[in-house]
Amino acid sequence: MQPTGKTKVKRAPFRGNYDIGKINEILDAHFLCHMGFVYDGYPVVIPTLYGRSGNKILIHGATTSRMIKSLEKGIEVSVSITLVDGIVLARSAFHHSMNYRSVVLFGKAEKVILEAEKLSALKCISDQVAPDRWEEVRFPNKKELKATVILSLTIQEASAKVRTGPPVDDKEDYERDIWAGEIPLKMKSEKEVSDPLLKEGIQASEVIKNLKKKYS
Amino acid sequence: MQPTGKTKVKRAPFRGNYDIGKINEILDAHFLCHMGFVYDGYPVVIPTLYGRSGNKILIHGATTSRMIKSLEKGIEVSVSITLVDGIVLARSAFHHSMNYRSVVLFGKAEKVILEAEKLSALKCISDQVAPDRWEEVRFPNKKELKATVILSLTIQEASAKVRTGPPVDDKEDYERDIWAGEIPLKMKSEKEVSDPLLKEGIQASEVIKNLKKKYS
Repeated sequence: MQPTGKTKVKRAPFRGNYDIGKINEILDAHFLCHMGFVYDGYPVVIPTLYGRSGNKILIHGATTSRMIKSLEKGIEVSVSITLVDGIVLARSAFHHSMNYRSVVLFGKAEKVILEAEKLSALKCISDQVAPDRWEEVRFPNKKELKATVILSLTIQEASAKVRTGPPVDDKEDYERDIWAGEIPLKMKSEKEVSDPLLKEGIQASEVIKNLKKKYS
Repeated sequence: MQPTGKTKVKRAPFRGNYDIGKINEILDAHFLCHMGFVYDGYPVVIPTLYGRSGNKILIHGATTSRMIKSLEKGIEVSVSITLVDGIVLARSAFHHSMNYRSVVLFGKAEKVILEAEKLSALKCISDQVAPDRWEEVRFPNKKELKATVILSLTIQEASAKVRTGPPVDDKEDYERDIWAGEIPLKMKSEKEVSDPLLKEGIQASEVIKNLKKKYS
């Protein structure tokens, strides 16, 4: 993917990456994005779930949502996805940092109209959050589908930015008696909590076990 | 805090919260925000570290950063902070959800000019990411301070949105033989990784141990 005026990483350009494989890898590692758009002249940033399907980012929302009502008009949006991988502790305050993987992308969302496409978009978002859960639950009915707007955003302009590894201190600071390194951070699951209204005798399925494993 | 046209939660309004205590609690629980602004007519969302000091959000960046150069002009910004607390698994695809705590706020950033104020803002951001680390590292020198822009954003318009608890399914779906509940998610630390260039014999300090504990 070619960097554009919008996506070229200006600050720490050596951390910029325009490889679509790398961009997709980061997009597939998360399910929450921050969606930015201009509403009534001012910027708005809203967190929302997403799924990636090929070169598209799919999001969903209620017909009544301000974000959905704005985006379905086909206005410009900016989507940012960030995975926090660790806190980087340097010997100097200035060189403290964060290890992360992030993607920023730009485009216009289009409303998905066909029922079959809406269903497959919902499956995609569902799979991104909880792989294979779609197959074991009740599918959306007509009324639910009607109340849900699906927006599809083609990934045309995007860049990834990644930081990994130890701190980079000024040469003279390496002699200081200060511990330096990284504390890796990772999103992890805790024990599942059954719905208090769960029907008696129902055990967590393989899908649930695998989801916990994904965050173990 | 009064909800405004910008901050009033429209979708699932019962999840909206305008209490400044609750807003601050969420702001204090994270260190990464997504900053939205309008650049050259299009929206841009960039992840960045922040610190909260009283009713202000402080961010920092290089003088060369596009975000910093845009924001220091005093343009409108929208800041979104989201903590993912769990995946909510319902019996129906439609009622799947996420447990989360989020804040969306609006305002204009002002450049911090005085050196003493810049230093205390940097300490605030540092403390938000790694409490008390500031005291054990080399402070920023004149050159580093000059290369760093600090922006301060007064929290004037803000709202929190929070979801907790089990899924809420349609009445008739509770009879289905499908496991439902929550998989709690939490950002956790793994074993610290010492800088390969660490001076021999230096051990991780209490500050580092406490930081790991914070994410245990």
